[in-house]
Amino acid sequence: MTVTPMSSTQQFRTERDTFGELKVPSDRYWGAQTQRSLQNFDIGGPTERLPPPLIKAFGILKKAASIVNVGYGLDAKIGKAIQQAADDVISGQLNDHFPLVVFQTGSGTQSNMNVNEVISNRAIEILGGELGSKKPVHPNDHVNMSQSSNDTFPTAMHIAAVTELTLSLIPALSELHDALDAKSKAFEHIVKIGRTHLQDATPLTLGQEFSGYVQQISNGIERVKGVLPRLSLLAQGGTAVGTGLNTRRGFDVKIAEEITKLTGMEFKTAPNKFEALAAHDALVEAHGALNVLACSLMKIANDIRYLGSGPRCGLGELSLPENEPGSSIMPGKVNPTQCEAVTMVAAQVMGNQTTVSIAGSNGQFELNVFKPVIIKNVLQSIRLLADGSRSFTKNCVVGIQANEPRIKSLLNESLMLATILNNHLGYDNVARCAKKAHKEGTTLKEATVSLGLLSPEEFDEKVRPELMLYPDP
Amino acid sequence: MTVTPMSSTQQFRTERDTFGELKVPSDRYWGAQTQRSLQNFDIGGPTERLPPPLIKAFGILKKAASIVNVGYGLDAKIGKAIQQAADDVISGQLNDHFPLVVFQTGSGTQSNMNVNEVISNRAIEILGGELGSKKPVHPNDHVNMSQSSNDTFPTAMHIAAVTELTLSLIPALSELHDALDAKSKAFEHIVKIGRTHLQDATPLTLGQEFSGYVQQISNGIERVKGVLPRLSLLAQGGTAVGTGLNTRRGFDVKIAEEITKLTGMEFKTAPNKFEALAAHDALVEAHGALNVLACSLMKIANDIRYLGSGPRCGLGELSLPENEPGSSIMPGKVNPTQCEAVTMVAAQVMGNQTTVSIAGSNGQFELNVFKPVIIKNVLQSIRLLADGSRSFTKNCVVGIQANEPRIKSLLNESLMLATILNNHLGYDNVARCAKKAHKEGTTLKEATVSLGLLSPEEFDEKVRPELMLYPDP
Amino acid sequence: MTVTPMSSTQQFRTERDTFGELKVPSDRYWGAQTQRSLQNFDIGGPTERLPPPLIKAFGILKKAASIVNVGYGLDAKIGKAIQQAADDVISGQLNDHFPLVVFQTGSGTQSNMNVNEVISNRAIEILGGELGSKKPVHPNDHVNMSQSSNDTFPTAMHIAAVTELTLSLIPALSELHDALDAKSKAFEHIVKIGRTHLQDATPLTLGQEFSGYVQQISNGIERVKGVLPRLSLLAQGGTAVGTGLNTRRGFDVKIAEEITKLTGMEFKTAPNKFEALAAHDALVEAHGALNVLACSLMKIANDIRYLGSGPRCGLGELSLPENEPGSSIMPGKVNPTQCEAVTMVAAQVMGNQTTVSIAGSNGQFELNVFKPVIIKNVLQSIRLLADGSRSFTKNCVVGIQANEPRIKSLLNESLMLATILNNHLGYDNVARCAKKAHKEGTTLKEATVSLGLLSPEEFDEKVRPELMLYPDP
Amino acid sequence: MTVTPMSSTQQFRTERDTFGELKVPSDRYWGAQTQRSLQNFDIGGPTERLPPPLIKAFGILKKAASIVNVGYGLDAKIGKAIQQAADDVISGQLNDHFPLVVFQTGSGTQSNMNVNEVISNRAIEILGGELGSKKPVHPNDHVNMSQSSNDTFPTAMHIAAVTELTLSLIPALSELHDALDAKSKAFEHIVKIGRTHLQDATPLTLGQEFSGYVQQISNGIERVKGVLPRLSLLAQGGTAVGTGLNTRRGFDVKIAEEITKLTGMEFKTAPNKFEALAAHDALVEAHGALNVLACSLMKIANDIRYLGSGPRCGLGELSLPENEPGSSIMPGKVNPTQCEAVTMVAAQVMGNQTTVSIAGSNGQFELNVFKPVIIKNVLQSIRLLADGSRSFTKNCVVGIQANEPRIKSLLNESLMLATILNNHLGYDNVARCAKKAHKEGTTLKEATVSLGLLSPEEFDEKVRPELMLYPDP
Repeated sequence: MTVTPMSSTQQFRTERDTFGELKVPSDRYWGAQTQRSLQNFDIGGPTERLPPPLIKAFGILKKAASIVNVGYGLDAKIGKAIQQAADDVISGQLNDHFPLVVFQTGSGTQSNMNVNEVISNRAIEILGGELGSKKPVHPNDHVNMSQSSNDTFPTAMHIAAVTELTLSLIPALSELHDALDAKSKAFEHIVKIGRTHLQDATPLTLGQEFSGYVQQISNGIERVKGVLPRLSLLAQGGTAVGTGLNTRRGFDVKIAEEITKLTGMEFKTAPNKFEALAAHDALVEAHGALNVLACSLMKIANDIRYLGSGPRCGLGELSLPENEPGSSIMPGKVNPTQCEAVTMVAAQVMGNQTTVSIAGSNGQFELNVFKPVIIKNVLQSIRLLADGSRSFTKNCVVGIQANEPRIKSLLNESLMLATILNNHLGYDNVARCAKKAHKEGTTLKEATVSLGLLSPEEFDEKVRPELMLYPDP
Repeated sequence: MTVTPMSSTQQFRTERDTFGELKVPSDRYWGAQTQRSLQNFDIGGPTERLPPPLIKAFGILKKAASIVNVGYGLDAKIGKAIQQAADDVISGQLNDHFPLVVFQTGSGTQSNMNVNEVISNRAIEILGGELGSKKPVHPNDHVNMSQSSNDTFPTAMHIAAVTELTLSLIPALSELHDALDAKSKAFEHIVKIGRTHLQDATPLTLGQEFSGYVQQISNGIERVKGVLPRLSLLAQGGTAVGTGLNTRRGFDVKIAEEITKLTGMEFKTAPNKFEALAAHDALVEAHGALNVLACSLMKIANDIRYLGSGPRCGLGELSLPENEPGSSIMPGKVNPTQCEAVTMVAAQVMGNQTTVSIAGSNGQFELNVFKPVIIKNVLQSIRLLADGSRSFTKNCVVGIQANEPRIKSLLNESLMLATILNNHLGYDNVARCAKKAHKEGTTLKEATVSLGLLSPEEFDEKVRPELMLYPDP
Repeated sequence: MTVTPMSSTQQFRTERDTFGELKVPSDRYWGAQTQRSLQNFDIGGPTERLPPPLIKAFGILKKAASIVNVGYGLDAKIGKAIQQAADDVISGQLNDHFPLVVFQTGSGTQSNMNVNEVISNRAIEILGGELGSKKPVHPNDHVNMSQSSNDTFPTAMHIAAVTELTLSLIPALSELHDALDAKSKAFEHIVKIGRTHLQDATPLTLGQEFSGYVQQISNGIERVKGVLPRLSLLAQGGTAVGTGLNTRRGFDVKIAEEITKLTGMEFKTAPNKFEALAAHDALVEAHGALNVLACSLMKIANDIRYLGSGPRCGLGELSLPENEPGSSIMPGKVNPTQCEAVTMVAAQVMGNQTTVSIAGSNGQFELNVFKPVIIKNVLQSIRLLADGSRSFTKNCVVGIQANEPRIKSLLNESLMLATILNNHLGYDNVARCAKKAHKEGTTLKEATVSLGLLSPEEFDEKVRPELMLYPDP
Repeated sequence: MTVTPMSSTQQFRTERDTFGELKVPSDRYWGAQTQRSLQNFDIGGPTERLPPPLIKAFGILKKAASIVNVGYGLDAKIGKAIQQAADDVISGQLNDHFPLVVFQTGSGTQSNMNVNEVISNRAIEILGGELGSKKPVHPNDHVNMSQSSNDTFPTAMHIAAVTELTLSLIPALSELHDALDAKSKAFEHIVKIGRTHLQDATPLTLGQEFSGYVQQISNGIERVKGVLPRLSLLAQGGTAVGTGLNTRRGFDVKIAEEITKLTGMEFKTAPNKFEALAAHDALVEAHGALNVLACSLMKIANDIRYLGSGPRCGLGELSLPENEPGSSIMPGKVNPTQCEAVTMVAAQVMGNQTTVSIAGSNGQFELNVFKPVIIKNVLQSIRLLADGSRSFTKNCVVGIQANEPRIKSLLNESLMLATILNNHLGYDNVARCAKKAHKEGTTLKEATVSLGLLSPEEFDEKVRPELMLYPDP
C-alpha cells in the first residue's frame, strides 16, 4: 500500500474498533477506523487525500460542538481538551494525521472518525492519558457527541467552501479585477481596431476592451458572493437522517452561532435538515459560479494571448511580460505561459462542474453518498481559480504593455474607417474607395485621394477614429 | 434542402441583397439574406431552428426600437407600421417565416436580418407597398435603425431567457413545489424507516422526507430568481463592437425602459456593453441555476420511483398513479414513466450545461460568436424543465399515495429501533438483542423478550418510533 | 396541447387499450397508446420528437420480425401486409404518424407501441379492414410478435445509429477529408511561418499544416468505423428482461440476418442480452468517437478562421469564400460563418457527450430507462456533424485560397529564421543579430548585414526557409 | 510558496539560464528553469504535480533518445551517463526532483526542461562533475539532443498512457471481470425476480444478471485495447512544429523502436507529426474508453448496492462483505462503501472527460497548449479506475453472497409469474387471478386456487419460474 509505507523500523500501537484490533503507526494520532479505511480504500494515493481546508473546517466544527456540548453537560475538562486538540487541527499542524482519500465511504464517515480519533488521542495526550485507550476522551461519546457523520461531513463541506471562497478566491479575484482595471484606465487613450468574427471592425480604445474584462471579473465576484447565503446554511443538528435524533433541541442553532464566532463569517442552521443531508444543491450552485469564472478567464486569457501574439507574425498589439526563457535563438519569442496556465485551470474547472453535477444529482433517500468527491472538486476549483488568478495577475496582467506603434499602424491600415465618410461622400462613393483599396492593397486614404474624392488634408480631417468610440450625440 | 421544399407549383418573388438576386417563396415575408442563409446552412433541419421565444423576443425588441427611434426622428408612419408588424411577430402568427437554424453565423446576424426582412415586408404590406421593394420600409435603414446584429441578438437572448424563466419555469416550479408541499403535509403523520447508504436507518415521517424535496424546489425557485438581475441587463446600444457607434446617446437607456413597459418585467441597460457583446457569462450563470434544478429533479424523481418500486418485490412504500397500460398481465405493474421522463430531462439539461459553458467560454475580442447555440440550449433547458415539472406534477406527484400498511410493516421489522433502548438496557444488552434478531431473522421485539430483558408490554411502551423523529428536549 | 391541435372540424375515430377508449384523429394511423402518451407527456413539443432515422429503423426491424415470424408460423397474408406497411414506415411517408417526444417512458415502450399501432392500422387498411379494430392485424399479437419494447427499442437504436454513421456521417467526413487533402496538396509549395503558443516559430508549408487536419479527419473516420462492431450487435431476442421469454429459440440470430439483408450492413445478435437491455455502453462508446470529431473540427475551424482573419488587421494568410454580405461598407469583411457554424456544432456535440454518458450510466437492474434521450442525442450529434461537415466542405474548404504575398511577407519578417545560421556564425553572433533586429524593428537580414557578419548575398544564400521543412539528412 | 519551503538551514547552489541566476536547493538535481517555473506557477500545490507515470515515461524517452543519439554521433560516454541517470528517473527514486505542477506552460516545456536538468545534473554527478556546471552533460545540447519540448511532451504523454493502460488498468479490469464471472457461474442456479423500470418483471437467474456485468467489463477491456493502436503512435521526431527541423532523418523511426524495446510494448512513429503536436485526439479518444468504463461501473455498483440494500427494509437479495463498522447499534447495517467509492470514481472520470475534451479541442496552429492538463486527467482517470476496480473486486465482489431464502421469497410473492398460465387458462382468467391477488394482498397461488381455476398441485406444477428463463424452443 502506497499510503503508509511501513518500514521495518516503524513503531506501532494497537487500536481497536468494533471489528477488532489493528496496528497503527505510533507517531500518528489516528485510530482503528482510520487505519481500516486506509487498508480498504487504496485508491489514488496521497494526491487524492481530502484537502486541508476540509480538515480545518472539521477542526472548527469539532471545537464548536465541544463548546456547545459543555453547555449541554459535557464535562468541562474534557471539553477544554477537545477544544485545544481541535485548535491543533485548525492550525494545520496535524495535517499528516489525515491520510484518507476521497474514494472512501460516500458519507465521509471514515473522515469524520479520523477527526474524532485524532482529536480524541490528542486530547488524551493533553490530559496525560494513554493513546488508543479512548479514556478519558472517547472519539464517539465525547468528540462526536450529539453528532453523526451524516451531519458533520456536510457541515464541514459548507464551512470549508465558504471559508475558501471568502478568504482565498474573492481576494484573488479582487486583485485581478484591480490589475485589469488599472490597465483599462492606463489604456483609455489608445484607439485600436475592433474585431468581430475575428475580422476587422470599427474601432474602440484598448481601455474599453479591457473594461469588458473588468466587468466580467466584477460580475464574477458578485456571483461568488451570491452563493454564500445558501452555502452558509449548516446541516449540523440533523444527525443520522435529518430528524436530529440523539442531539438536543437547540443544538443546531447554537452550533451555527459558535461557528460564526470562530470563523468571523455568518453561518446559520439549515431550515430543512433532510434537504441538507440528502442533496448538495448548494454546492452544485456554488460550483456553477466557479464555472462562470472559468468561462470568463478562458475568454480573457485567450484574448490577451492572441493580442500578444507575434512578435512579427501575429497581432502584436500587446507585450506580455517575459518570465522565463522562450527560446535561446528567437529573442522576441515570449510564450504566453501564464495565459496557458489559466486556460488549463478553466478546462479543469469546467470538467469539475460535470463531476459535481453528477455527484450532486445522485443522492438517495436520506443521504447523498458522493460527499467526498463533491467537496474535493469544489475545493480544487476554488484553489485553482484563486491561485491561477493570483499568478495571472502578478506574472502577467500587471506587466502588460501596449505596443502603441503597432496598434496605430493596424488602425490606419483598416478599411473600415470608411464608415464615417458615408455622410460626406454617400454610400456608393465610399464603397468605391474601400473596394479600390482592398483590391489594390493600398490604404483607404490613398484610394480616396486617387479617386479625387478628397484631398489628403480633407481625408485626415474627416477620418478620425477617435470620433467613432461613442454613440452619436 | 429539407427546409423549404419547393414544389413545382410554388410561387416565388425576387429579393435582392448586396450579393445579388434570389428567389424567395411568395408566401413568405423573408428576404434575400434569410434565403441565402437557408441555402448556405443546411444543417440539422427544422428541429434545429431558433426557438419561438427568441423570435418573440426579437419582435418585442424591434417594436421597442421603433418607438424609441420615432423619438429620435424616424418617420412616425413608418414607425407605426413597424410596430404593427412587430406585434404580428410577437403574437407568434409569423413563426413560419423564421426558418433559420442555430448553426449559422455565430453572431446570429442572419436571424436579425430575418427579423428585419419579415418586419420590413409585413410593414410594407400594411402600408400598401410591394414586397421585396424595401420601400417605404427598409429592413436595415428603418427596422434595424440604430442597431447592429451584435447588440440585437444578445438583447433578444436576454429578453427571451428572462421571459421564459418568469412566465414559464417559475410558475411550473411553483406548481411542483405546492404539490410536493401538500403531500408533505398529508404525509406528516406517517412514520417510516429512514434509509442512508440505502441501508435501514432511524425513522422519520414520510412528510419529513417530502419536506426535503419541497426545500429543494423552493431553493431552486430562489436560484432562478437570483439570476434575473444580471440577465435583465441588455446589450442594446452597444452596436457593432460595444462603443455604440451609429446609435444615439441615450438610446440604450430608453430602449430598456421601453422593453420594460412592453414586457412588464424590469430590464436595464448593461453597464458595460463590451462585456455584453463579447461574453455571455450571464447566460452561463443562468444555466447554472437550471443545472441545479436538473440535479434536484434527478434526486426527487429517483427517490419517488424507488419508493414506489414493486408491487411485491420492491420497496413499495408509495403508489404512483397509473397513467397508461403497464402490462396486460401484471395488474400491479405501474411503470414510473413520469419519473423516467423527468430524469431524462435532467440528463439533457446537465449536458446542455457543458454546451453552454464551452460556447460561453469561447468569445473572441469584441464578440462571442456562439450566440445561437447558447440561447438554443438555454431555452431548451427552460422549456424541458418547465414542461417536465408540469407533467410530473399533474401526472405523478398529485396522485402519489402512501402505502401505510407496507410502510408500517417495514418499520416494525427494522432492527434499528433498538437505538432507543440504549438508555434503558445499556449498550451491550441492546446489541445482544439486535444481533440475535438479525441472526435468527426475528423481530427485535421477539429477540428482546426471549432474552428476558423486557416483557412484550414493556417493549411496546418503550420502542416507539414516533419518539425518534426529533432532537431530545 | 401543442402536439395535435384539434380544430373543431377535425374528424376522430375511437381507439381502445386496456385503460379504455380514446379519440384519435381520423387521418392518423396511431392508436390509443400513442394518443395517451401524447396527452401524458406534453414536454418540449414537436422539436423534441424522436428523430426520423429511429422511426425508419423501427420500420426495418418490424419488417424483419415479420419475415422471421412467418417462418415461425405467423399467417403469411398478415405477414405480407405488415411488411408492406413497414415499407411505408421505412420510406418516411408516414413520419407524421409518429408524434411522440423523447421525454416519455424511458424504455421507449410508447414509441414501440406507436410503431405497432401505425403498422397494424396501415396493414388493416391494406387488407381492407377497419382502422382501430385490431383485426385482422393486431398491434401486439402480430406486429410485436416475439418482441418486447425492451428489446425492440435498443435494437432500433443500434440500427439507426449504424445506418446514420455509415450512410451519412462517414461519406460527409470523406468529402471533408478529400477537400482538405486537395488543399494540402495544392498548398504544398507554400512555405509559411509556423506558430506555437501563438508565437512565431520555425517555418512549415501550408500544405504540411493542412496535412494535420487531413490526418485528424482520417483518424476520425477510422474511429467511427471502430465503433461499428459493437454497435452492430442487436438486443433483439432478449424480450422483457434479457432471457428471451416469449420469443423462440433462434429468433435472435435469424432477425439479425434479416436486418443485415434489408440494410446491406452487417448486424449480429448480441452475445449477452442482459447487457444489451440494461446498459448502453456501445452508444456511449459511439458518442465518444463523435466527441473526438467535435474536438477535431473545433481545432480545424478555429485555425482556419484565425488564419483567415483580417483583411488588414489579422493574420490574413488565407482567404475564405464570401458566401453572404458581411457589411455593405467594408468590402474585405468576410465573416468566417461556416467556421462559426461548425464550432457551434462542436460545442453541441461535446455537451451531448455529457448527456449520453449520464443517461448511459443510469441503467437499473434489467433495464436502462434513458433510452430515448440517449438515441436522440446520438442521432442529433451524427446529423449535426454530417451536415456541418458537408456545409463546411462545400461552402468553405473547397474555396479556401492562400494569400501568398501575405504569407511570404510574414515569413520574411520573422526573426526565427536565424536558427539556421547557428552552424555558420555560432550561437552568440546569431543571438546578436536577432536581438538587434527585434530591438530596432528591422529584418533579420538588415541586422545581420549591418553587423558585418554576412553580405546580403550570403544571407540570401544561407537563410532559406525551404531548407527548414524537414529533418537533417 | 508551498512547494519548496526553504528553511533557514537549507543549503543552496546557484544555477543559471538565459534569464540569469537562481538559487536551487542543494539536495535537488533540478536547475534554473525548473526553479523559475516553481516561482512563476504557484498554482495548486503538491497535489497538482505532474503524475509519476509521466515522469517515468520521460525517463524512458530520454534513455531511448540517448541510445539513438549515440548512433548519430553523441559521445558514447555522455550517452551512457545519460542512460544511467534516466534509469534513476525510470525507477522512481528521483520523483522528489520533479516538483512542477500541471498549471504551467501548456506545452509542458518546463517539465521537459526539469527532466533535462535532472538527468544532466545526475549524469554530471555520475561522471564526477559539478552540479549546475552543465559540463560535461548539457541539459539542452545532450539530454535534449534532436528533441524539442513540443515533441517530447506528447511522446511522454502517449508512453505514460499506454503503459498505465496496459500494466495497470487492463489487469485490474481482468481481475474484476474474473471475479464477476465467478459470481455469475456460482449464481447460475438461483432464479430471481427480474426488475424493469424498477418494477417486478419476469424472472431470470442471478447468474444471468451478473453475466451482464461480466459482458460490460469484457467489452470495456476490448475498448481500452482498441484505443492502443492510435495511442502508440509517437510525436517524437516532429521537434518544434512537426517538420523535424534540428533532428535527423530516421530519428523518429529509430526512437520508436528503442522505446518499444525498453517498454516491451509496441510503439510506432506517428505518420503525421503536425497532427501529433497540434491535436490530442488520440488521448480524447482514449479517455472516451475510460468514460464508458465509468458508466459501466456506475451501473454495476448501483445495482449491487440496491440488491444488497436492507437488511430488513430494502431488496436484500445480496449480502455484501462487511469491511468496517457500520453502526455499533445496528448489527445488520453494512454500508456498501466499496460501491460508494466506485461510483465516486465514476463521477470523477465522467467529469474528467469534459476537461479532456475541452482541452483537446483547443489546439492552435502548430501546437496544443493544454498538454499537462490533458495527461493529468487521463492518468488520474486510469489510476482511479484501476485502483477502484481492484478495491471493488477484492473488498466487495469476491465476497458477495446471495440471500437465497429472500430471493426465493420475493420470487414466490410475485404476480408476474401468471404470465405462464396464459396458455392454460386464457388471458382473461389469468388477469382475474392476478388482479384478485393484487387487490387482496395474497399470493397468485392463493388467488388462483380460491377462484377454482387450478388446484394447489396443478398450480405448483405449471407455475415454475425455471421455465421462464429462456426462449421457447
